[in-house]
Parts: sequence; structure tokens; C-alpha cells
Amino acid sequence: MAVAYDPNNIFGKILRGEIPAHKVYEDDVSLAFMDIMPRAEGHVLVIPKEGARGLLDVSPETLGQLIKRVQHVAKAIEKAFASDGLTLHQFNESAGGQVIYHLHFHLLPRWEGVALRPPGTMAEDAKLAEQAEKIRAAMAPFEG
Amino acid sequence: MAVAYDPNNIFGKILRGEIPAHKVYEDDVSLAFMDIMPRAEGHVLVIPKEGARGLLDVSPETLGQLIKRVQHVAKAIEKAFASDGLTLHQFNESAGGQVIYHLHFHLLPRWEGVALRPPGTMAEDAKLAEQAEKIRAAMAPFEG
Repeated sequence: MAVAYDPNNIFGKILRGEIPAHKVYEDDVSLAFMDIMPRAEGHVLVIPKEGARGLLDVSPETLGQLIKRVQHVAKAIEKAFASDGLTLHQFNESAGGQVIYHLHFHLLPRWEGVALRPPGTMAEDAKLAEQAEKIRAAMAPFEG
Repeated sequence: MAVAYDPNNIFGKILRGEIPAHKVYEDDVSLAFMDIMPRAEGHVLVIPKEGARGLLDVSPETLGQLIKRVQHVAKAIEKAFASDGLTLHQFNESAGGQVIYHLHFHLLPRWEGVALRPPGTMAEDAKLAEQAEKIRAAMAPFEG
């Protein structure tokens, strides 16, 4: 797993503003945005601004700050979608399920009796924009 | 999801020493031990000592400290089992996949071509003891 971070990945491009994303939260440490292939309504990704490939190479300091943003965004998602639960996934390397090689946490709101969708289906852009707006509207100020 | 933490759960009992566990790491913030129904060889759980039900009610301070222990233990697991990747799961509420209502992170070492096992099969105690020993032996000192 000791592979160097390559900034030429989709999330690196989103961080640099080279490609768009439906952002729900951003600060000096992190960016959170809608997954374009959602496995659940309201599926959000939270990534560090630090260039890190995964859980093992990110600096402990950034990781500690990042997970607080994950929690912060999770609270807004729960409020926005009135979800019954939440599933968090974080994949490392291809064997671990990783597809984009920039550390990211998947936040998946869940409802009783609703399974996760299989991966790989692109969502409508207008729908993602609407969901991002809903999450931003439900979000409290981040208190650190 | 606003349900109060109930200390009368299996992980609460493990924290209080009322039932045993194959521990791989412990400090003032956290405890890490082998999952007795492993979905992969070397499947470890990392929990906070703080009584928290899940991602949403744990204090941000504890969460920030806890995830650094998750990373620390993950590095030892990778070394101990020469894994190709790692999958992290964290489940909240029954709809989110949670079974034990004390916040826990699942650390699942992964190898190319090896799927996660279906949940629910108890591992041999001797095997878990051996795996815990392997992880402890591979673990660097925690640097905070």
C-alpha cells in the first residue's frame, strides 16, 4: 500500500476547481460534495485538502481534523433526509474497494428496509444540486 | 437517531472487563480488539472508551483522537497480514447496519481476489488469540 499520492485524480481536480462538484461543505481542511454515482439518496463524500491516498498515508493531524468534518456533515445529512441510520465506508487500494486514489469517506444515509444501490449508476445533475442545497440548508455552523 | 447510549452492551462489558476480548491496543481513549465474527482474517474493531452510541453522538474531541488510533492499528494490521488493501466500515443504527450500540470502526484487511465473508460466523478462539498476537507484534509505538 506504500504508493505515492498522485494529484492527477478526479478529487484532486475537484479540489483545484478543474472539474465541478456539488459542494455541501468546505473549509481549510476538507471538502464535502455529492457522489455522482450515489448508492443512496444523499450520498456524500468527504475528502481532505491534503494530498493523501488513503487512511494509512494521511497525516494523523489532518485525519483527526477530517473526521470531525465527517461527523459535522453526517449530522446535516441526517437532518436533511430524515434518515434512520448512516453507513460510513472508507476504501483503501483496489483490494479494499478504492476507485479514486484520494482519501475519501462515504457518508450513506439509510432508511429501514432500503438497501444500498449497486455502484456505478450516474445520478441526474439537477437532482444532486437539489440534494446538496438541502444538506447545506440543514447544516449548523461548524464549531471545530 | 437521537437515542441515549446504554452502557449495557457487549462492548461496554468488554471495556469494563466483564467479558474477555483479544485486545490488540488500548490507551486512555480507545480499545482495539478482534471481532469474534470476522468478515476477514485479521478483522479488528476500534472503539472509544467514551460511552457513545455512534458517529453522531460521540464528542468531536474523542472522535478526532479515536480515528488516529484507527489509523495506528490499521498500519499494524497491514504489516501483520501483508494485506493489499483495507476496508473501513462504521455502522449507525439498525438501518445503517449497526448491531452493537457502542460506536465502533471495523478494520478489514483485504487481499486481491478475496471477498469479505458473510457476517455471522464465530471464529475459533485460538485463532483470534494468534492473530491478536501477530498484530501486537507488528505494532509501532503510538505517537499521538
